[in-house]
Amino acid sequence: MAETRIDIAQESRLIALLLDRQQATKFRQQFLNFHVHEQALIFVELNLIQRQRLYRYLTSAKVAAIFNELDSADVTSAYFKEMAPKYAAAVISAMYTDNAVDMLETAAAADLSTYLKYIAPKKAATIRKLLHYQAKTAGAIMATEFIKLTGDQTAAAAMQLVKLQARQAEIIYYVYVVDQMDRLTGIVTLRDLLTAPGESSVAQLMTSPAVSVKVDDNQEDVARMISDYNFVALPVVDADEKLIGVITVDDAIDVIDEESAEDYSGLAGVDIDEQKDNPWQAAFKRLPWLITLLLLGMSTASLVAHYDQMVSEASILAVFISSITGTAGNAGTQSLAVAVRRLADPEADRRSLGKIILTEILTGMMIGLITGLAIMLIVGWWQQNIVLGFVIGLAMFCAIIVANLAGSLIPLLMDKIGVDLAVASGPFISTLSDLTSVLIYFNIAKIFLQFIISD
Amino acid sequence: MAETRIDIAQESRLIALLLDRQQATKFRQQFLNFHVHEQALIFVELNLIQRQRLYRYLTSAKVAAIFNELDSADVTSAYFKEMAPKYAAAVISAMYTDNAVDMLETAAAADLSTYLKYIAPKKAATIRKLLHYQAKTAGAIMATEFIKLTGDQTAAAAMQLVKLQARQAEIIYYVYVVDQMDRLTGIVTLRDLLTAPGESSVAQLMTSPAVSVKVDDNQEDVARMISDYNFVALPVVDADEKLIGVITVDDAIDVIDEESAEDYSGLAGVDIDEQKDNPWQAAFKRLPWLITLLLLGMSTASLVAHYDQMVSEASILAVFISSITGTAGNAGTQSLAVAVRRLADPEADRRSLGKIILTEILTGMMIGLITGLAIMLIVGWWQQNIVLGFVIGLAMFCAIIVANLAGSLIPLLMDKIGVDLAVASGPFISTLSDLTSVLIYFNIAKIFLQFIISD
Repeated sequence: MAETRIDIAQESRLIALLLDRQQATKFRQQFLNFHVHEQALIFVELNLIQRQRLYRYLTSAKVAAIFNELDSADVTSAYFKEMAPKYAAAVISAMYTDNAVDMLETAAAADLSTYLKYIAPKKAATIRKLLHYQAKTAGAIMATEFIKLTGDQTAAAAMQLVKLQARQAEIIYYVYVVDQMDRLTGIVTLRDLLTAPGESSVAQLMTSPAVSVKVDDNQEDVARMISDYNFVALPVVDADEKLIGVITVDDAIDVIDEESAEDYSGLAGVDIDEQKDNPWQAAFKRLPWLITLLLLGMSTASLVAHYDQMVSEASILAVFISSITGTAGNAGTQSLAVAVRRLADPEADRRSLGKIILTEILTGMMIGLITGLAIMLIVGWWQQNIVLGFVIGLAMFCAIIVANLAGSLIPLLMDKIGVDLAVASGPFISTLSDLTSVLIYFNIAKIFLQFIISD
Repeated sequence: MAETRIDIAQESRLIALLLDRQQATKFRQQFLNFHVHEQALIFVELNLIQRQRLYRYLTSAKVAAIFNELDSADVTSAYFKEMAPKYAAAVISAMYTDNAVDMLETAAAADLSTYLKYIAPKKAATIRKLLHYQAKTAGAIMATEFIKLTGDQTAAAAMQLVKLQARQAEIIYYVYVVDQMDRLTGIVTLRDLLTAPGESSVAQLMTSPAVSVKVDDNQEDVARMISDYNFVALPVVDADEKLIGVITVDDAIDVIDEESAEDYSGLAGVDIDEQKDNPWQAAFKRLPWLITLLLLGMSTASLVAHYDQMVSEASILAVFISSITGTAGNAGTQSLAVAVRRLADPEADRRSLGKIILTEILTGMMIGLITGLAIMLIVGWWQQNIVLGFVIGLAMFCAIIVANLAGSLIPLLMDKIGVDLAVASGPFISTLSDLTSVLIYFNIAKIFLQFIISD
């Protein structure tokens, strides 16, 4: 950790103590000295009584600043319920609309109406509107505090506007240029305004057409775009090209982080952000997957049972089941991880689908060949049985090719048909590959059975 | 994909055509109309002859802007070798220092000396210095173009400085305040400068102490800090607290992305960013892991071979090897993924180590109990053998607890001793858990063997 960071646990205890003792002045001195992000970290460590004192000791604007910084895990309307409705409304008003909306999403309809009653009609209408955008779209994460003007204004007038709105706007580094219909026509950076002669027109200075996103675009695409283009903010337009919001880079980071956590979760068949739960909750979250896979795994077991007679005759066959299923499963997981990553960042790989699949088949053949040869030599030497070695090696070769194809094709197919099924997960691929591997193994073994036993 | 994005493949073909036909003017018209990030995407699609024409048709400043936008995968000094050394030096000079240094890292010492000869001594010295910072530290990703002044200046003077340096500075939204010794004492935002009265002193306006990082801090910690604090940039100081650079949010996103790709790679035992390689290269990258795991898996095989006699007597035991190893492996992978995520974002979980481990043991017991009971009932009913069911169930219970502990403890231990070993990977945990699962299974089976056979 960087050294300038404070010890949150220790500072939280101190702040809690000041609140317990009702030392309002000393609390304010200490607490407001922290960066607002640190204030948020301390805030979530407080208990109900301490929080209610904090609401009393701080202005609604200060509380709003803290709430703007809350981690997604801590974003909840429960905090508003602890306040007098009027104070809650003041906090909501002072927050950036996108953050306020995130928190209000969990509020009961009755509570929401009460808060909105105390909020200026225009802001209340914006909040209502933003609450209706679908989760995980640009609309759901955009802010509505931005600076806009028409192209016929001068650079000096634009600078004046920036100065006036600097306190309210979530982002002041871009000024958005719109036409009479409020349609986005261009973007001027603050850098341009600062260096341009005051009398030059905004239309001359602006970059046009502006790169923008649609309100119903997927949040991951939007975040990738901000990251790829190195933007600090990206404008959001509606179906009529009207400018209705901006998405800032800090929201983009959160989305990228959230989406990569989702991809991980997919790889491992578990919600990796479960951390805060107790063991029973954690177990019940993980169990459905495990039980499903166990049942799927029973088909592998019943397949082995089907070949029971053969295993009795040549119990040595049982020895290598786990080697073949294990290695094929590992190879399948590798190819799954590469495919999942490719889907997450399409720009990283601009090859055609056919070429990707061909590469994966060739990779699987290569891996299967070398791994198959390796195990053939090991088994042949260890068991002094070259036919057995050949059977194991050939089964490994085939099982790996199948596992690699499954690992790369399943996520691609899921993506094509547009569903986000958990079957594109490492454990699923491993379990599926167990089944195909055993099937391949015993069928090859059956052909050579008499040589294995007699050899 | 957002709709405003252009079709890079198509536009690249058009641009390539214009270069092939040597239509300089038309090329400039079309090409410079794209966003610089899009120019970079098109640039990497061109061939050597096309690129050399592009260098001739564009100023070094335009080429520098493109190079500033190159993806990490495309960052290479090879492009400089295609240019006349003097032109290369001009491009390097016009790039942001951090990006120039990234590209020069792959340059031969002789080439580097040649370029630096043509670069202004001060900039050349900075480049030399940055090239010496260790990879993956704050020093290696920081930029040196920032705006600084002393606290006794006025807001008006500061604004003047921002205007003067707006073109060169990589970031203009923060002005850094230093003392006579060049030590960082505070930060003033452009927002503050814009809204403050011109005569107010910078010392009054600044936030102090400033949140900063040390030059040798790990890049992942720095990136997390930028993301947590919602900074657009973060100052970097040396051991004497002297301000020497800034890290911008766009670099932080790249680092977060890169590090999460590394974590994925760890989970799956594969370099997930291998996409651009051909199948042979891909296979040879994946093989070392697979062969290592295969050899480790041979110990599982030899363990089964050790119990050969028992399997001959009760071949039904072979049927459930894959169910037990598979389920334990899946449970271990889940617990590994949760642990890896926890390590990547320490802020997400502020519980003590002991509590984390206790939770994981309890979770494992709970999962083991329910999964064990489930398979006991299934096997008991299917095979009409309740003792066999009990043996499988008990083995499953124990194997899952061990796998869960391994999945959560191994990454924690690796992190504690500070090494980044690939043993904290899903495939490794699965393969290790195969071994312990089989050991547990056969030892339990041995105790109940006579009942299984006679039942």
